[in-house]
Amino acid sequence: MQSFRVNLGRDSHQVLVGQGLLDQVGEFARQAGLAGRVAIITDSNVARLYLARVRKAVELLDPYPTTIELEPGEQSKSLGTLARVYDRLVEAKLERDCVIVALGGGVVGDLAGFAAATFLRGVALIQVPTTLLAQVDSALGGKTGINHPKAKNLIGAFYQPRLIVADVTTLESLPERVFREGLAEMVKYAAIRDAPMFDELEHASKGIVSRNPALLEHFVTMSLRHKAQIVEADEREGGLRAILNFGHTVGHALEARAEFGGLLHGEAVAIGMAVEAKISQTYAGLPAYDAERLIRWLNSVGLSTRLPFEQCDEPFIDALTLDKKRRKGGELNLVLLRQLGQAVTKYVPIEQFLIELNRIAGTAQPRD
Amino acid sequence: MQSFRVNLGRDSHQVLVGQGLLDQVGEFARQAGLAGRVAIITDSNVARLYLARVRKAVELLDPYPTTIELEPGEQSKSLGTLARVYDRLVEAKLERDCVIVALGGGVVGDLAGFAAATFLRGVALIQVPTTLLAQVDSALGGKTGINHPKAKNLIGAFYQPRLIVADVTTLESLPERVFREGLAEMVKYAAIRDAPMFDELEHASKGIVSRNPALLEHFVTMSLRHKAQIVEADEREGGLRAILNFGHTVGHALEARAEFGGLLHGEAVAIGMAVEAKISQTYAGLPAYDAERLIRWLNSVGLSTRLPFEQCDEPFIDALTLDKKRRKGGELNLVLLRQLGQAVTKYVPIEQFLIELNRIAGTAQPRD
Repeated sequence: MQSFRVNLGRDSHQVLVGQGLLDQVGEFARQAGLAGRVAIITDSNVARLYLARVRKAVELLDPYPTTIELEPGEQSKSLGTLARVYDRLVEAKLERDCVIVALGGGVVGDLAGFAAATFLRGVALIQVPTTLLAQVDSALGGKTGINHPKAKNLIGAFYQPRLIVADVTTLESLPERVFREGLAEMVKYAAIRDAPMFDELEHASKGIVSRNPALLEHFVTMSLRHKAQIVEADEREGGLRAILNFGHTVGHALEARAEFGGLLHGEAVAIGMAVEAKISQTYAGLPAYDAERLIRWLNSVGLSTRLPFEQCDEPFIDALTLDKKRRKGGELNLVLLRQLGQAVTKYVPIEQFLIELNRIAGTAQPRD
Repeated sequence: MQSFRVNLGRDSHQVLVGQGLLDQVGEFARQAGLAGRVAIITDSNVARLYLARVRKAVELLDPYPTTIELEPGEQSKSLGTLARVYDRLVEAKLERDCVIVALGGGVVGDLAGFAAATFLRGVALIQVPTTLLAQVDSALGGKTGINHPKAKNLIGAFYQPRLIVADVTTLESLPERVFREGLAEMVKYAAIRDAPMFDELEHASKGIVSRNPALLEHFVTMSLRHKAQIVEADEREGGLRAILNFGHTVGHALEARAEFGGLLHGEAVAIGMAVEAKISQTYAGLPAYDAERLIRWLNSVGLSTRLPFEQCDEPFIDALTLDKKRRKGGELNLVLLRQLGQAVTKYVPIEQFLIELNRIAGTAQPRD
């Protein structure tokens, strides 16, 4: 097991990564000073596989933990589902010293996290991520929230967990695509700030794809340490945290277009990173060889890097430029690579960005 | 105008108290570094009286501010109303740099504050309280939230405003009962921590009742300074903030009983303070003369101090002992007075507390 602390003043907390940790969630919670009654929020897929073990583990704190099962999928991140979660917490007569355990992927973590942030003005939260995407990214950083019919994550709060427990053996049960999409966010940390980690990932790609638990423990920990350092420096997204958006400008625009075959988040980010690496060659001096290495790694773990069109259309351009965070006048605020392991932010004129994008889409597509 | 700062690290903010400040909300917001688009959340009663002025004032930041009018009353503190507020904020395409102005009493402040806390994971909030209760108490301290059908303020967050603007001339328009109930929370600060303030209040009671704006400016500022000091020492209600509950153990139990004629919060707290002052004589050595002075002051401003029954019944006892925060085994955690201006917390056995309460209710009722 690996363990480290996220230092955020009074919101500091421990991160544990290891194999078989689900059975010790109760012990870890006690070591973190938690002692109240427990509600486990999960989805029905995860419940079938892991709920019994976590339930048993938290009996150390509460012999009769409350369990709340959501329907799997993004549509559960709604105000309606949240209302039902509050109802269950009230019914169970939970009080201010209670502990909410978020057992599942990003949807469960976001919704359960927001419920914990807002029930009785905030109760203790333990994140127990069970997908690779949640383990390397969403479980750490304090972003919680739900969707509004008009926009994702529109309703939410920054709220730090009291503990994060990532059991990498839960990754064994993930469907292939869901496992792979997490690898995109994992290699992102290497690309933006850790060249030696990239070397390691290159050497380990076969073991990673076969889900070797020791390798996963190692790289999940590395990823979370990177994220922790970034969040420590910039908890509320004022500056540095922006570099986590590498691959996401193009990635989000791809995700927003259902026409593109319902790409998963990590799949869209993989394509986004490949494209933004190509653009980094022009605008940030990234050596062509480095862009090639990144693309080759993504392909080697089964992630496509090809844009699903040959020419940007209007709706795609709208999706690209909609987010004012990423825009300033006629320029896009991009996270680019100067070299593998070193990110920079650059403003690039939208016109030029689209010309580059069309060139990449039409002729020089990052290969699969 | 009086002005001071609430020191809460990165959540520090300015408090302004004065006459005619509504017309300068835009200027003050700009001085506080706010520059985004504006949504004013208010209720239809307050809107009729003050919305035009505040709208005009914030045009400095946003020539077309969004205005959201709630129905007046506690029933607006619901998830349904909150959902409609989110809809309006989305419709108006407000972004992360927007400013929400909460213009109204406690209901508006709580709901608009929670909307600000959770829209886009938190946007800037200006509290512009227009009732005495909100000006001396609820606008400061960061408590925001809505009700669940089963319990008040069950859903919420601690979220500090970026600015508080209390214009005491808005108090002129309050209905008599609504004005008076605020005086209960005002004298509470004197009772728990400021004997000289109590002397001042005694001398000024006539001017206060006639709503002399200079006097109100003085005492609202004093009250908010006390609250600020308490909140600075204990932002999340770990300890000291508990003394703000003087009068509230009995007060909340009275409020919970609709049979008692629909007492307003401040009216219930006034009776609660009178009763808890009597109990302080037995359990905290409060001189009888001090209890008498407090009761006399409450009566002099038109607040009743009589319990609305002669014997505690079961539902009242349940309401008293329901809240586990206030209970430990068979004892109630009470805030009592050692002398006027000095509060202490004491555990008193529930049995003995009820005997005292029945004695007070049956024979030695605090007079009106």
